[in-house]
Amino acid sequence: MKYGHFDDERREYVITNPQTPWPWINYLGNEDFFGLVSNSAGGYAFYKDAKFRRLNRYRYNNVPMDNGGRYFYIKDEDTIWSPGWKPCKTELDKYECRHGMSYTQIAGAKNGIEAETLFFIPLKTWAEIHKVRLSNTTSEVKKIKLFSFMEWCLWNAEDDQNNLQRNLSTGEVEVKGSTIYHKTEYKERRNHYAFYNVNAPIDGYDTDRESFLGLYNEFSAPQAVLDGKPTNSEAHGWSPIASHYIEVELQPGESKDYIFTLGYIENPEEEKWESKNVINKKPAEAIMERFNTVEKVEAALADLRSYWDNLLGKFMLDSNDDKLNRMVNIWNQYQCMVTFNMSRSASFFEVGIGRGMGFRDSNQDLIGFVHQVPERARERIIDIASTQFPDGGCYHQYQPLTKRGNDAIGGGFNDDPMWLILGVVSYIKESGDFSILDEMVPFDNDMSLAKSLYDHLTISFNHVVNNLGPNGLPLIGRADWNDCLNLNCFSTNPNESFQTTENNTEGSKAESVMIAGLFVVYGQEYVKLSRRIGNDAEADRAQAEVDKMVAAVKARGWDGEWFLRAYDFYGNKVGSDENEEGKIFIESQGWCTMAGIGKEEGMCEKSLNSVKERLDSDYGIVLNNPAFTKYVIEYGEISTYPAGYKENAGIFCHNNPWIMIGETEIGRGEEAWEYYKKICPAYLEDISELHKTEPYVYAQMIAGKDAYKPGEAKNSWLTGTASWNFYAVTQYILGIQPDYDGLKIEPCIPADWKGFTVKRQFRGAEYTIKVINEAGVNKGIASLTVDGKEIDGNVVPIFESGTYEIVVTMG
Amino acid sequence: MKYGHFDDERREYVITNPQTPWPWINYLGNEDFFGLVSNSAGGYAFYKDAKFRRLNRYRYNNVPMDNGGRYFYIKDEDTIWSPGWKPCKTELDKYECRHGMSYTQIAGAKNGIEAETLFFIPLKTWAEIHKVRLSNTTSEVKKIKLFSFMEWCLWNAEDDQNNLQRNLSTGEVEVKGSTIYHKTEYKERRNHYAFYNVNAPIDGYDTDRESFLGLYNEFSAPQAVLDGKPTNSEAHGWSPIASHYIEVELQPGESKDYIFTLGYIENPEEEKWESKNVINKKPAEAIMERFNTVEKVEAALADLRSYWDNLLGKFMLDSNDDKLNRMVNIWNQYQCMVTFNMSRSASFFEVGIGRGMGFRDSNQDLIGFVHQVPERARERIIDIASTQFPDGGCYHQYQPLTKRGNDAIGGGFNDDPMWLILGVVSYIKESGDFSILDEMVPFDNDMSLAKSLYDHLTISFNHVVNNLGPNGLPLIGRADWNDCLNLNCFSTNPNESFQTTENNTEGSKAESVMIAGLFVVYGQEYVKLSRRIGNDAEADRAQAEVDKMVAAVKARGWDGEWFLRAYDFYGNKVGSDENEEGKIFIESQGWCTMAGIGKEEGMCEKSLNSVKERLDSDYGIVLNNPAFTKYVIEYGEISTYPAGYKENAGIFCHNNPWIMIGETEIGRGEEAWEYYKKICPAYLEDISELHKTEPYVYAQMIAGKDAYKPGEAKNSWLTGTASWNFYAVTQYILGIQPDYDGLKIEPCIPADWKGFTVKRQFRGAEYTIKVINEAGVNKGIASLTVDGKEIDGNVVPIFESGTYEIVVTMG
Repeated sequence: MKYGHFDDERREYVITNPQTPWPWINYLGNEDFFGLVSNSAGGYAFYKDAKFRRLNRYRYNNVPMDNGGRYFYIKDEDTIWSPGWKPCKTELDKYECRHGMSYTQIAGAKNGIEAETLFFIPLKTWAEIHKVRLSNTTSEVKKIKLFSFMEWCLWNAEDDQNNLQRNLSTGEVEVKGSTIYHKTEYKERRNHYAFYNVNAPIDGYDTDRESFLGLYNEFSAPQAVLDGKPTNSEAHGWSPIASHYIEVELQPGESKDYIFTLGYIENPEEEKWESKNVINKKPAEAIMERFNTVEKVEAALADLRSYWDNLLGKFMLDSNDDKLNRMVNIWNQYQCMVTFNMSRSASFFEVGIGRGMGFRDSNQDLIGFVHQVPERARERIIDIASTQFPDGGCYHQYQPLTKRGNDAIGGGFNDDPMWLILGVVSYIKESGDFSILDEMVPFDNDMSLAKSLYDHLTISFNHVVNNLGPNGLPLIGRADWNDCLNLNCFSTNPNESFQTTENNTEGSKAESVMIAGLFVVYGQEYVKLSRRIGNDAEADRAQAEVDKMVAAVKARGWDGEWFLRAYDFYGNKVGSDENEEGKIFIESQGWCTMAGIGKEEGMCEKSLNSVKERLDSDYGIVLNNPAFTKYVIEYGEISTYPAGYKENAGIFCHNNPWIMIGETEIGRGEEAWEYYKKICPAYLEDISELHKTEPYVYAQMIAGKDAYKPGEAKNSWLTGTASWNFYAVTQYILGIQPDYDGLKIEPCIPADWKGFTVKRQFRGAEYTIKVINEAGVNKGIASLTVDGKEIDGNVVPIFESGTYEIVVTMG
Repeated sequence: MKYGHFDDERREYVITNPQTPWPWINYLGNEDFFGLVSNSAGGYAFYKDAKFRRLNRYRYNNVPMDNGGRYFYIKDEDTIWSPGWKPCKTELDKYECRHGMSYTQIAGAKNGIEAETLFFIPLKTWAEIHKVRLSNTTSEVKKIKLFSFMEWCLWNAEDDQNNLQRNLSTGEVEVKGSTIYHKTEYKERRNHYAFYNVNAPIDGYDTDRESFLGLYNEFSAPQAVLDGKPTNSEAHGWSPIASHYIEVELQPGESKDYIFTLGYIENPEEEKWESKNVINKKPAEAIMERFNTVEKVEAALADLRSYWDNLLGKFMLDSNDDKLNRMVNIWNQYQCMVTFNMSRSASFFEVGIGRGMGFRDSNQDLIGFVHQVPERARERIIDIASTQFPDGGCYHQYQPLTKRGNDAIGGGFNDDPMWLILGVVSYIKESGDFSILDEMVPFDNDMSLAKSLYDHLTISFNHVVNNLGPNGLPLIGRADWNDCLNLNCFSTNPNESFQTTENNTEGSKAESVMIAGLFVVYGQEYVKLSRRIGNDAEADRAQAEVDKMVAAVKARGWDGEWFLRAYDFYGNKVGSDENEEGKIFIESQGWCTMAGIGKEEGMCEKSLNSVKERLDSDYGIVLNNPAFTKYVIEYGEISTYPAGYKENAGIFCHNNPWIMIGETEIGRGEEAWEYYKKICPAYLEDISELHKTEPYVYAQMIAGKDAYKPGEAKNSWLTGTASWNFYAVTQYILGIQPDYDGLKIEPCIPADWKGFTVKRQFRGAEYTIKVINEAGVNKGIASLTVDGKEIDGNVVPIFESGTYEIVVTMG
């Protein structure tokens, strides 16, 4: 069942049934100021940090779901309705939500009134624009009442929900003209306030929640709206809100526009006040002035569209599969940018107060957006590397506001250092900017310990070499990529988190075959890079270590039909046919086949065949099989989930692309493509009632074959799934790979594809790459021409400017 | 305006209008298992710790307020209603909520059906009983549909609201017969589950929230109730709930009873399972069996009533003021016991996930309940003292589950040690149990460092002596009783808490006159106690220190018309007429007058006159005056609140009794009594629409005279206000003081009181104390007779058993 459709021309997903199986959301904002907005206008805005600078109060996992947002109420005689259906839930004559690139447009109609609302954050602006157009489609004069509504969050979202004994006394507002200012704690240490303005005279307002809503009313029926008049309340403590009231008269056929601006202001200490206890409103008024006409707002929206035209113009696919086109060209890239902006902080599943930026997450996210904004990728790499420890270990997370490592969770995740190599290598291949290797980068944010970024890579590489276990495989530490495989943990206390409880790494024999594969993949990249910059001695040394690791995996990491996952604390095999449950895991199959370990001996093919046989399902590849049905204290959190969910045999979408890439490594284009389609949201649009999350973005997890309801997705938007799928489909299925010397072209596609065309901007030039597969092969290139001239090999050279026609003939 | 009335006979407050100005709540449970229940059945249950073992999901500060609880829905033809009005909010023909001593009864009627619900936790039982009686008052046969509903919390209430990416995959239930079992994480480290049972066959059920409610329905209109049938859903992940469905046929005049049991079970590791993945239900079935008939439930309720008869029988006042009687005899004592059980963890203002038990809070709470449960007071004292440091400083908080000090907040609050003397002395005076002084009590929970409790008191005393500032007054450390007066803090970062940010105590000159007064009061008690146990040398030494302190306060702590509050970091006066704002503070006036410092010189009277002139208001005594209108970085959090709220010139009810006691020290009975009535909730019942919180319990804070709306109360129930008011009214106004040698009788009352009678159980005997004030004095005793025989002085001797008639004639 569908709840809408794609509008590829406008790069929008159009929702026509407001009762989506889960709130379907979008993100506003691209730099410092952000908003989440659902298909019924639920959500909130924040400045930089969703925990510390949240503008609107929002209640997660509420009843009803997605309660609270930027709401508009229309009172037309005795009918009360909202353009987004919620919160009123009055049946509408028309409803349409269009989620586009950083904007959302929600339109509703009732009894001859149309209300069209547009939400976006203009570029370089700390404010959300809410443009409301009201139209009278009847032949009568209509007099209606418009109420805006949002509830202020008292800045720190965690405190806001927990510290009521303080918060219920602190709320403060000012009202001036058509603007409601939220200034809680501005008197003291805060140098910032928020405002909600409308560009028209108002006929009243409310700033106190209870006065507007009533203590026992739902959002669906605020008392002031029922009464048809506001109370002009002034909030003092309790819960401050902002609600404007406008009486609107519309002639037949007439439309009126109102522009609401929800903004955030920081004032320097010496300019905080206009007079005693009266805040300095000048900077707020300047923002309002920038967007106080429809023309100005439309110009700002046009700028935003250009911004996205530019970003999405870097990679444009023309295949004969609309779903593939829209994912590659629009939604997958868009999700990668959102993930870059948000990390894992705020979605409708992530409450925005918990996790910092992940070391490994951020490096992996980077491969999804580096082609769009390489300069920001560069900055991100330096930030990440700065939280590395001098021994090569890493803070597992860091805080975006301070950019410092998170002590609460610490380090010891032994895969972390390898991902830095991925990040740096991806950046250089895209940009050609080797100078980043010479950047002096601190350890643990201590500049006195700084070394070059290349040294950081060396130390990262060595961290694995220096931490090998009894089988010559990498010690796992606290955990590898799979945070829930806690081999040194042994927790019996339900009150403690597996991520932070004491780990018994001392004397542990726990080794990770996944890190071994990862080490071979990025160890080889480190060798190549070292050679590239003329450091042959280091390249030779590193290659020898990589070779040793390959040998170790073959000797001690192979179970006969697939790669082992690990050895546990006691040295017992994990992910072996010998085990009763958890015989096979996806991660080591992914990384060892990506690394090509034992390819000649048939290990890769066997491994991938085992994946197909044991892990594949209708909705994607599950993480492990059989699922754990009881708690295995030696394994930790993985075995705590019900079978089929999350890391316990769920379809953890992040790692499915590793298998896709593995398949392309052995040339199996059909298999790679089938795996791609199974978890790709656009292909799941027709089963939205089962899939539940948005058909335009990836979810972190889909319930696996052992689950109660296989196919049900959770945790959409903020997941490494986005970048890995973009990376897999563009670089390994479509096969357009940025490399040091140019664009390497190596497609691996279904044999019945006749070809496709990609427009790619790379190092200043624009390439139109036409891939022809009349031969009906999966992989292999017969010829490659540049502007009609055949060249050797499959690497399109770097031209730095101009446009070039590339024709690639497979065969 | 009133929303109900007191029923003193039944010890109940009866709410007749469900739309109270704030949810008015009650507490269930007296030992390990507790519940909060509002007048519309909102709230939740928990086992021991409201954070780690919460049974029901509850959303604080929601819209509408107080959403979620133990709800019953009745579908009668097309009408859907709930006996507690909420959540349906269908207008009822009758509504009545009776909050009693550890039970709540809520009755509603609609269209000829009466539904009476009774909520309580039987003694020594880990379960809530919800008894539902449905009656048909019409002359027709009625067929109605009854749905129960509650939502499971996934145990850890903090994780439950924040860790959605995990939680939405972990929920697990089992259904067997008429019982729904909640077993999330039981598979792994938890040895506990919950259940919700009804003692009758059911006609269906739901365990999945979305199936029952619908994704977009409010609690007021669940989809299953609208449809008139459940979906028999089984929750897997997402949000598990428990809803029973029963089709009820009632003959004219017929009543039927249903007993619902919400229970908590812990199983030993080896008895967790009945069979693979099937939980061991035997202990749950045993609880159900204990309460599966109306007779058994009524017997359990009778036991609970006896329990309270016994507790409240320890002190019974008969005055000719009903409001005073009901506060002293019922509600104030009840609140003290609730505060003892809950500390500051869970109310409708405290979300139950934040604060541990406070060192000073717990000692002060003790003076309100020590006469009721001295043996539990003894245990509490040992727990508290065990978190003291060897130098006499104290962890400011400790965790009730582990009884260990809370590292996150640490120590350094320099008043903390003195409160231990208050706690111990109060316990010994009540019980006569000097043996507690010989208990070996650890420091920082380390038994190898243990010393006797008396040694702890010595060390506490010395901690003040060893930490004096340049004026010979006690250094304040992080803060004294007023957590918000942060004289060593200087915070400019709004993201940090004043309670935990780094403090610059090194080199600080910040001294507290309040601690000085506190030291004199409890130092004198320490002297008396030392002398009492024959340690005269120590008594002499201590007395000399106390004398020095008295001299220091007179010399450096007096501002001319009142006592200074403190000296700040730089040695500047705080709470002086020299200051522009915050010229006078309540705390030092309270403690220095209680200590009688400078009484002879008229300082006490001047101080109290200044309180009356500058701090008193219609609704109580404000904390300071004038209120701070801007942030004073040298003072910290106190100046962050808007004027008139909380510590910034709010009426902080906890400290008003200090002034009442101070007034009795100088014999001003009228003033003490007026102060008592101003904040005493029973006297505020008629202004409930302003006061907002319950008219039967104290609130922590009432908005002060500088506030926007003076008189508005916040944070009811869990506040030291309860014990201090009980202590002040019983020991200083009524003047019945437990002492080492007996009951000291020293009333200080309004001159127009003719007298009163108190029944007091003390050290095994029962005293009827009749106070006669025909003389119309405030204070002073002309004669005292025991069973007709006059005795010298005003101390009734200890008899250990029997009943005695005491007549006290004032004059």
